[in-house]
Amino acid sequence: MSLIVQKFGGTSVANTERLKNVARIVTDTKKKGNQVVVVVSAQGDTTDEFEMKAKELNENPSSREMDVLLSSGEQISMALLAMAIEKLGFPVISLTGWQAGFKTKSDHCNARIKKIDTSRLEHELNSNKIVIVAGFQGIDKYDDITTLGRGGSDTSAVAIAAALNADLCQIYTDVDGVYTADPRLVKNAVKLEEISFDEMLELATLGAQVLHNRSVEMAKKYNVNLEVLSSLTNTSGTKVKEKVTMEKLLIRGVTKDDDTSRIALLNVPDRPGFAYQIFALMSKYNINVDIIVQSIGRSDMKDISFTVPMKDMELAQKILTERKDSIGIGDVIATDSVSKVSIVGAGMQTNPGVAAKMFEALYSVGININMISTSEIKISVLVDKKDSVRAVNVIHEAFFE
Amino acid sequence: MSLIVQKFGGTSVANTERLKNVARIVTDTKKKGNQVVVVVSAQGDTTDEFEMKAKELNENPSSREMDVLLSSGEQISMALLAMAIEKLGFPVISLTGWQAGFKTKSDHCNARIKKIDTSRLEHELNSNKIVIVAGFQGIDKYDDITTLGRGGSDTSAVAIAAALNADLCQIYTDVDGVYTADPRLVKNAVKLEEISFDEMLELATLGAQVLHNRSVEMAKKYNVNLEVLSSLTNTSGTKVKEKVTMEKLLIRGVTKDDDTSRIALLNVPDRPGFAYQIFALMSKYNINVDIIVQSIGRSDMKDISFTVPMKDMELAQKILTERKDSIGIGDVIATDSVSKVSIVGAGMQTNPGVAAKMFEALYSVGININMISTSEIKISVLVDKKDSVRAVNVIHEAFFE
Repeated sequence: MSLIVQKFGGTSVANTERLKNVARIVTDTKKKGNQVVVVVSAQGDTTDEFEMKAKELNENPSSREMDVLLSSGEQISMALLAMAIEKLGFPVISLTGWQAGFKTKSDHCNARIKKIDTSRLEHELNSNKIVIVAGFQGIDKYDDITTLGRGGSDTSAVAIAAALNADLCQIYTDVDGVYTADPRLVKNAVKLEEISFDEMLELATLGAQVLHNRSVEMAKKYNVNLEVLSSLTNTSGTKVKEKVTMEKLLIRGVTKDDDTSRIALLNVPDRPGFAYQIFALMSKYNINVDIIVQSIGRSDMKDISFTVPMKDMELAQKILTERKDSIGIGDVIATDSVSKVSIVGAGMQTNPGVAAKMFEALYSVGININMISTSEIKISVLVDKKDSVRAVNVIHEAFFE
Repeated sequence: MSLIVQKFGGTSVANTERLKNVARIVTDTKKKGNQVVVVVSAQGDTTDEFEMKAKELNENPSSREMDVLLSSGEQISMALLAMAIEKLGFPVISLTGWQAGFKTKSDHCNARIKKIDTSRLEHELNSNKIVIVAGFQGIDKYDDITTLGRGGSDTSAVAIAAALNADLCQIYTDVDGVYTADPRLVKNAVKLEEISFDEMLELATLGAQVLHNRSVEMAKKYNVNLEVLSSLTNTSGTKVKEKVTMEKLLIRGVTKDDDTSRIALLNVPDRPGFAYQIFALMSKYNINVDIIVQSIGRSDMKDISFTVPMKDMELAQKILTERKDSIGIGDVIATDSVSKVSIVGAGMQTNPGVAAKMFEALYSVGININMISTSEIKISVLVDKKDSVRAVNVIHEAFFE
């Protein structure tokens, strides 16, 4: 007998038919002799509807009351799923975050899980029940309802799997696994059988929207075996775990992230502390800087470029331009017509030719590289936005086809 | 400083505009220096929508999961109201049933309140906050969510008022008080300034749908001063309390209840135990018998008539007809073309002419009385349904105009 945690996202429980489908998946798993804990998100657009209703009353509601409102979304979907499972004749019980023992910090709308008191969960599992838990929510030390923020339901599922020492945590979503590239962009993208936590983390950070970083980090920390799969197809998904067979793959995937923009500072003085000055300023305004490249220009001058999220581009340009003279920089040039294209794979650590192969692919179709950034298991390049889809395809072809 | 509990029903919080209106009423009460606890129902048709969604998945869902589903309705409206009150700049906090300390029995969908642990409520009131509480819900000893059944939010409000020893419990609804008759039927119906608990109980039972019996019973038991008023008009409502000034009113109101039907058993033998046999049978099938009249017929035979809710008429007729011979009765005649018209008022106890005045009014316009039933403070008559509106009007005229 295995203990399996299954998490279903908003699209998987969006309506009556989908809920019946989820009930079938869950009861099939139970029928095979497993213990099952199900974690659900709010149905489809519920969260958006709640946020709209709230905005009509108060454009800046307190995060405490927002949590009270949002958390009712999972409460609705868990009760409905329980009814669908009852209909199939299986013992089942639904538990809210507080009933399931989720204790969190008090940072409303973005609370961290402190611990899970698993006594109720274990009691219900030992009574042979399928246990449904509301994802995304818990209570703090004041008994106030909290929510976990983006990717919260995935995190709830992984946290339960860790706390109960589950054999597997299945994340059901609207794609059926992790692909070597976004199948909407790359025709020949292939589903990966498995991927390591570190690779998944890089992919998540670089724009693959399959799993949220936070849940992968937690899975890595507590060594929870994950599987990403679809509730709408009946195929096996992608396993995410600590150790993966290396196969023959040098890299696991190619990603594209359009939410980036480049700030270039021309003719900056070549003196110590200058970079610190610039990036302390960005930090002060809460602007998240990604790739930084410093070029060697004239003997006493150089250029510095860096990328920031698109929403922060104008602000970054404004605050730097205002301080042009005091800092002593020339022009501040900003553009958001760029994309970040990346490859990820633990294989590149032991294969020195990976970067060259990527650059060669881009060169072969005449795509210019603006910036380059590397880590142990990823290489990112900044290219013109208009070239980005072509870049992903030509790189994918070079490595996978 | 007074402590006031204000309860707002589903229509009062149905949409953004109504919620803003309720926020104004609540904050106006707070501004006058009062402590305020607000009890809310689910918005408008939320409960119906939830029930429909549930039915699509399972025509017979467990009452436990139904309670999980339904209780989220109040959680939504309390969070939205809190946001509307925040917008007006007042400190406010919303509490679910369990957060507000509502402990109930485990009879899901129709749970009785066992006690209210008021520590959190008092803490928040002492922090100068407006406290919003989800009506209709609590938790049982297993920490499972329960709901209180019909009229549940009124009951929640009265229970809080009793537990906190509040000075007043205001029930805001879609009518602005208790009238001498339904204003939709009687043009000259007058709003009562006050009414006693007993009179209100009789009116509620006899078809006035202003307050639910259960909440009035609780208010009487704990001597909670009630006021029924409208959230949509800015007028004072009707006070419901133990002692009322008698004024010059012989009676408080005239009501009509169309949900009734009459079963007549003709030529029944005049022997002991016969009535017991009939009504034990009704009880066995859970049929609620209201008025019973036994006529004196021929020397050894008599007729028995009684009323039952319309939905039970066919069943009652069927089970009696099937046993006609074994019990020894003649024909079983059923009709639902009857209405019960009643007058209620503690004044009739000391005024013997009240019944005569009612019958005279009916006689004066040629309305035939089918059955009569009386209690200390009410007189009910059964008339043909086609005459019922006329009956209410002519009686109202006799007593009030």
